[in-house]
Order: sequence, then structure tokens, then C-alpha cells
Amino acid sequence: MPTLKNDALIRALRRQPTPYTPVWIMRQAGRYLPEYNKTRARAGGFLDLCRNPDLATEVTLQPLERFALDAAIVFSDILTIPDAMGLGLYFAEGEGPQLERPLRDEQAIRGLAIPDLARLRYVFDAVRQIRGALAGRVPLIGFAGSPFTLACYMVEGGSSADFRALKTMLYARPDLLHHILDLNSRAVTDYLNAQIKAGADAVMIFDTWGGMLSTPAFREFSLTYLARVIAGLDRASESGQVPSIIFTKGGGLWLSELAATGCDALGLDWTVDLSVARATVGQAVALQGNLDPSVLYSSPEAIRRETQRVLSSYGAGNGHIFNLGHGISQHTPPEHVAVLVEAVHELSRPLH
Amino acid sequence: MPTLKNDALIRALRRQPTPYTPVWIMRQAGRYLPEYNKTRARAGGFLDLCRNPDLATEVTLQPLERFALDAAIVFSDILTIPDAMGLGLYFAEGEGPQLERPLRDEQAIRGLAIPDLARLRYVFDAVRQIRGALAGRVPLIGFAGSPFTLACYMVEGGSSADFRALKTMLYARPDLLHHILDLNSRAVTDYLNAQIKAGADAVMIFDTWGGMLSTPAFREFSLTYLARVIAGLDRASESGQVPSIIFTKGGGLWLSELAATGCDALGLDWTVDLSVARATVGQAVALQGNLDPSVLYSSPEAIRRETQRVLSSYGAGNGHIFNLGHGISQHTPPEHVAVLVEAVHELSRPLH
Repeated sequence: MPTLKNDALIRALRRQPTPYTPVWIMRQAGRYLPEYNKTRARAGGFLDLCRNPDLATEVTLQPLERFALDAAIVFSDILTIPDAMGLGLYFAEGEGPQLERPLRDEQAIRGLAIPDLARLRYVFDAVRQIRGALAGRVPLIGFAGSPFTLACYMVEGGSSADFRALKTMLYARPDLLHHILDLNSRAVTDYLNAQIKAGADAVMIFDTWGGMLSTPAFREFSLTYLARVIAGLDRASESGQVPSIIFTKGGGLWLSELAATGCDALGLDWTVDLSVARATVGQAVALQGNLDPSVLYSSPEAIRRETQRVLSSYGAGNGHIFNLGHGISQHTPPEHVAVLVEAVHELSRPLH
Repeated sequence: MPTLKNDALIRALRRQPTPYTPVWIMRQAGRYLPEYNKTRARAGGFLDLCRNPDLATEVTLQPLERFALDAAIVFSDILTIPDAMGLGLYFAEGEGPQLERPLRDEQAIRGLAIPDLARLRYVFDAVRQIRGALAGRVPLIGFAGSPFTLACYMVEGGSSADFRALKTMLYARPDLLHHILDLNSRAVTDYLNAQIKAGADAVMIFDTWGGMLSTPAFREFSLTYLARVIAGLDRASESGQVPSIIFTKGGGLWLSELAATGCDALGLDWTVDLSVARATVGQAVALQGNLDPSVLYSSPEAIRRETQRVLSSYGAGNGHIFNLGHGISQHTPPEHVAVLVEAVHELSRPLH
């Protein structure tokens, strides 16, 4: 395996000195890029991209050709696990991901099993191939959905305004939800370990829906299982421990508890003040985030101003990875991303 | 004006002793009640109810006939102000509120003016009539949208997943947004003062969208104007100062700052832990909330258990008003609301 030419991300995740603040962008290989849309049209659809390691490699590298990003993230989807469990992942045009066979009765839930990793081989092949194609240019991030977030989709069958089926189960039949979460946390752990084995330099867990829970429900149904996944990671690699990142969207109230899971970094959405977050977590973890993605709709001047604001709010020192507070929107002008990446690198130097 | 027979809400808002924790429910007169749907069908639609003081009175009182609620809230909508400004409020079947003429260019924004209160007379007439019909049974809450939340709808034209038009203006042309917010805060102040004059016993400001802002943007574009409205309230009434409540959904990170606006109480969504919130705001304000509305989908046992949990999390003493953390869903079984109201009254007595 080649050593990293740019290891700023890994060093920042370990809270070690870097010459500037590294930056990458959630969903950086995506629909705001014309070249991505071309590849996707050629492939057929989103899932065809995910399942074809050649094409997944192609789109993973596209944003790196345009922008001086400090990381790549494997092109995939958080619902590959429920799909491998047999729930049938599909995408209807213009809609979010959906599952053909959501878990709506006890029998279906009791019949669920952790998936055979062979069914997810296309993901590990993609990791291996992207890692090879990167040739050490920047680190490669592997990822998974959190046990709770996967359960939301598995019970509901898709995204939802209020996740009524999931919430009804959570309050009326918590035992069933815990059964699903137990399986999910084992599946996520195995899945991330296989990505590490295939060459992922860091791993991230997306807890997209944890923030819709009450504090006690968050602790019981999301946090517990996040901690279990982190504890189960086999993080040894030839270049040292592979760092892990947890991102609970809307989790700003629970940062101390999230930091105590044993992860190396927390992703933060844009509502959180980085100076408050840093004071809250102390030396426990690095912080990743957290520009409002909507800033990228505005103007180069506003992008530089708001980038400076995010950098200043973290302040001087190590342990900050710049990112948006949520995935980049398809309506973002690519030239604004160029402004952002340049601004982060330039404006962060005085802080290091 | 009759004196209040049940003043538990007002006393709790003033952090004075009450024999139990008072409870009311956001959107308590709504589509989960069959009698509401009947009246609404007879009237034509939602706006016909709002604009007819007889019908607004009828539906406002409906939940009080079923449940031992400790407050009524005037049946109306937060978008009456933009409607009175000439933006054309309408409801398409199955969709949220929309405005026919959203503010999409500088000329339209510069042409905006605070509305003639005569155009909102139907609201003040409804307040007066409901207050008369209540005959002091419970207090009547008047309300308005926050200046920022109104601006969201005024710029966007309706609800939105990401409020792209609003956010673009916020970052690219903050001067235009401030112009709208200045007008809105004056309009909201006048509007709430007229409701107080017509007999509202308490007033509440719904900052439904403040929680989608970054911390500095929340301070600049929502908090400042909330404080301005509170400062402009003419709260004197024959029964003492009329208490005010601010509810910023998703505002759990900013409770100290919200408490410092001078309001009497903060509404809290269900993500916030009441014990943490109480420790944060100290003696500054009362707290209203914050059961996850989804609990009402579950079972009587789960409703009692989660109600106890919310009550215990606030703990013993004055200054708690029980409510949901968000408006009640149309899919709620009314008999579950009966369980909730009874549970709050019964289980809270040992805490007082």
C-alpha cells in the first residue's frame, strides 16, 4: 500500500499539527458536478454506480480533479446493509432511497439476520480499487449508516417527515427495535472492519436521524449502539490506528456523550457553535464541520466571510477538519466549491 | 371581563405555585378531532374557519369539551400577517400554507409595509368572542409567528426542505432580509398587542424555523427580532402582566440567550432534556413542553410512562407547563390525548 502524500486529514483526526485545516465535503461526488451526472447517466442510475467498482472509482475521484480536497470518500450508500439483509433497496426518480420490504411485523423482524459480507463485496472491491487509484494522494474515508438510522429506513421503508412507524415501535415495542438495533450494530461493525481491511484510512458513521429523538431515547436507541460499533472496530492498519468519526445530525445537545463513545472525531451540523463544541468536548475528540451548506448558494465574498467565521469559531490549534454541516446540495454551483476549498486552505494557515 | 376559574397556566408561567402541572397541547384544535373536521367541512376550509369568529370560537372550544386542558389557544394561523401585507395566503389540499406572491426581488421587498390592523380584525374579534365564550374557564393564549419564521414563508412562498431562496438572501443580501425582519417585528408587536387588548391572557411566539440557522445567523436574524417584539409588548391587563412564551423549534442550543430576551417562558421541543434546560435557564423563565408527539401513537401504558419521564425530568417545583414538543399530529387517536391529560394532572401532584 502506498504511504499518504497528503495526510492532513488523518493528522487532524488525531489532533496532531497540520500546516492548514484539511477540508472535504460530505457528498462531494454528487449531482452538483456535471461530470458525475454524465457518468451516472451512462451507468443507468445511482445504484449502478455503487455496485460497479470501476464507476464508483471514477466518480469518487471526480471532485479531486476539480478541487484541492484533502480526502476522498468511497462512493456508496448507507442502505447497502439493509439491502444485503434482503429488504430490497431502490431509488424512484426524484425521491430518496426506499426499501421494498420494510419491517412492519414481528415475524419479519424475528426473521432478520446480519448479512453475509459476500453480498457487500462490491463495496470492499470499490474501496480497494479507489485506494489503488488514489495512490496515496489523499486518504480514503469508508462509511456506514448508524444502527439507529438504518433501523429508521428499515422500519419506515424510506425517509419520512415524522417516522411514524419507527416512533410507534420505539414507544410501544422497544424490544423489537432493540432486536433490530442489535443486529444492525453487529452488521455495521463487520462492514466497517471489512472496509478498513480493504484499505479505508478512516471510517465515518452517519447518524442522520438520531437528532429526531428525545434525549433519553437518543441514549437508549442510538448512542448505545454507536458506542458498541466503535468498541468493535478493528482499527489496526499498517499506518497506525484508523480514526473513526461519528456524525449525529441534530446531535448538538449530546456532544459530551458522543465524545465518550471512544470515537476520534465528531461531525457537527451547522447549528452548533464550534467554540462551544470545542469547550464541551475538550481534548477528547477532533471536530469536523460545520459550514451551512446554503452558504454555497450565495457569492464568493459571502463564502469567504462565512468560511472565516467557521475557522475563527474553532480558533487556533489542531483537531479541526473543515466540512459542511450537511451533504452538499445538488443546486450548488461547482465554482463556489472551488472558492470554499481555496478559502479554507488560505485562511486557516495563520491558525496553525 | 370574568376572572379566571382555572389560572394554573398563568401562575405556572409566572413560576408561582400550582396544585399540579398545567397542560395544553399545541394545535389542540385540529384534524385529529372528528368534530373539528366536521366544522371545517361545513365552513369550506381552514382559512374560512380562521376568518369567521363564530367558527373559530367553536373549534377553539372543542378540545376543552373532551379533555381537562388548562388553556385554550385562539384558532388562527401564523401567516395572517403576511396575508394582511398582501402576499395572498392560500392552502392547497394536503399541502402546508402557501403565499401567492412571495418576495423574490428587491422591488417587492422595498414595497412592503406593515399591515393595517383593520385587515386582521377577524383575529381580534375571534379573541374577544372566545374569551367571552370561555367565561373564565381557562386562560386564552394569543399567538404570532416570529419575525424570522414569517420571513421564511414570505421569501420562500411556502414550506421547504432547505429554504434555498431565504438562505441565499440571508448570506448574499442580508440587508434585504433585515428590512423584512424590521417590518415583521413591528407588525408582530402590534398584532400581539391587539390580541392582548382583545383579551388574550398570554401570548406565544412560534419561531418554527429559527432552528435551521447557524448560531451566529440565529442571533442576527431571529433572536434580535424576538427580543425586539418582547420589548415592544404592552403587557398590562386588568389581571396583571400578560405572560409571553417563545418557542424556537430546534433552539435547544440557545436557551440562555432566548431566556435573556425578557420573555416569561420558553417552549421546548422534545429533543431537549428538561433537567438540563432548567439548570441552564435557572430562575429566569418558566419552561413549556416537551413530550415527543409520537408518544401519542403508542399505547396508554407508554403514554403514562413517558409522561412520568417528562415530569420527573423537570422535577419538583413551579414553572413547568406540560405540552408536546411540537404540534399534535392529525394521526393521533383522541383517546390517547385523554390518557395524556389525565396522566399529567395525576402524576404531577406529588411534584407540587
